[in-house]
Amino acid sequence: MTELNLLCEGKSKKVYQAGDPDQVILYYKDDTTAFGGVKKARIVGKGALSCKITAILYDRLRLRGIPTHYVRTLSEREQLCKKVRPFPLEIIVRNVLAGTASRRLGVREGTTIPNTVYEICYKNDHLRDPLINEDHAVSLGLATYKELEEIKNLALAINAVLVPLFESVNISLIDFKAEFGKDKDNNIILADEISPDTARFWDMTTHEKLDKDRFRQDLGNVLKAYQEILSRLERLP
Amino acid sequence: MTELNLLCEGKSKKVYQAGDPDQVILYYKDDTTAFGGVKKARIVGKGALSCKITAILYDRLRLRGIPTHYVRTLSEREQLCKKVRPFPLEIIVRNVLAGTASRRLGVREGTTIPNTVYEICYKNDHLRDPLINEDHAVSLGLATYKELEEIKNLALAINAVLVPLFESVNISLIDFKAEFGKDKDNNIILADEISPDTARFWDMTTHEKLDKDRFRQDLGNVLKAYQEILSRLERLP
Repeated sequence: MTELNLLCEGKSKKVYQAGDPDQVILYYKDDTTAFGGVKKARIVGKGALSCKITAILYDRLRLRGIPTHYVRTLSEREQLCKKVRPFPLEIIVRNVLAGTASRRLGVREGTTIPNTVYEICYKNDHLRDPLINEDHAVSLGLATYKELEEIKNLALAINAVLVPLFESVNISLIDFKAEFGKDKDNNIILADEISPDTARFWDMTTHEKLDKDRFRQDLGNVLKAYQEILSRLERLP
Repeated sequence: MTELNLLCEGKSKKVYQAGDPDQVILYYKDDTTAFGGVKKARIVGKGALSCKITAILYDRLRLRGIPTHYVRTLSEREQLCKKVRPFPLEIIVRNVLAGTASRRLGVREGTTIPNTVYEICYKNDHLRDPLINEDHAVSLGLATYKELEEIKNLALAINAVLVPLFESVNISLIDFKAEFGKDKDNNIILADEISPDTARFWDMTTHEKLDKDRFRQDLGNVLKAYQEILSRLERLP
């Protein structure tokens, strides 16, 4: 790896400037954090697995017409991506209630629901990424109503692709987080990653958790779970 | 007052069965609470003022086509109202950011916004009335999407009536809470109260707070503020 200009560093990734001014290189770290950074660890090999899983998913999404920032994989933990101006929003799509949603609503983790739940959070560490709605986002100037509608349509379209994809490898997609940005042509595209770091995957038969909740809840075998997700995705026709 | 059957008691009101099985009597208490019941006081005369203010506002709203539960005033602190099956939702409409919204979004109290903010909270003391969205409400079976759309339309229509009404007496309607229910014919109607207990009113010239924030923030002259709101409303043509 030649010397690169670090643009920013998050909890689980670094972003470098690529040769093309409209592109960046995403470097997936092994660092893992939970509860707003309160719980931390380094899980050797985790970054490479999330990098591979995201690449597979973003390729599938692209084939289904979802625009993403992913261009190609450069190394075990590096992806060439389009540079975006990110919306400071964390979009969450839920098919089953778990995590913060089950705590907020006072229901048991794993509660099935008759609808798909779409959430917008304000990506702001200081405020601990609070749940907001479209009106709040517009009030703060984070996005326009039109942009928010496009983001919602994309997020639900992504869910509609991923749910049957994971079902075909016997995994229930409980929920996932997505981040969006605008590319140089002002198109809204999927950015960041979708991996066991940012989604919940439960085995459909055993209900075993195959995602970062194994780290959050000290269930052990974190890396093995990520490896299992990758193995099943690699089996896809 | 003859002996009445108490149906339920909230933090600031009691609800009695009226002679007509489809009606109730709302009794406005002097009890005042804040921060989910942590801060409490009894402000003698407060109940009667909130009762009168709500009566004036609900009469005005009815004249503008908003269906409400209010039938007529029976005594200083008693109102005859239609019985409703309440939605366990607290609807908040904001014209300026204050209170929980300014804390959630990390902005100064009094931040002006280019849009109207509509919020749904799950009325649940145990969960501390969390902010939710339409999808959560449907997930929990609290309301259907169609009902939520009707509630939103009503809440925004109420705001559109109340903002200019209060402006005409030099008061800025910062925000208000509204609760809705279904009457015997399954019509969705405005229930509960709209008063300085449940709304924020700031004098447009002095920015003086004329609502329950005087109690929450220990600003003094709580009763005087409620009296001021009533006096100005009584001056309306």
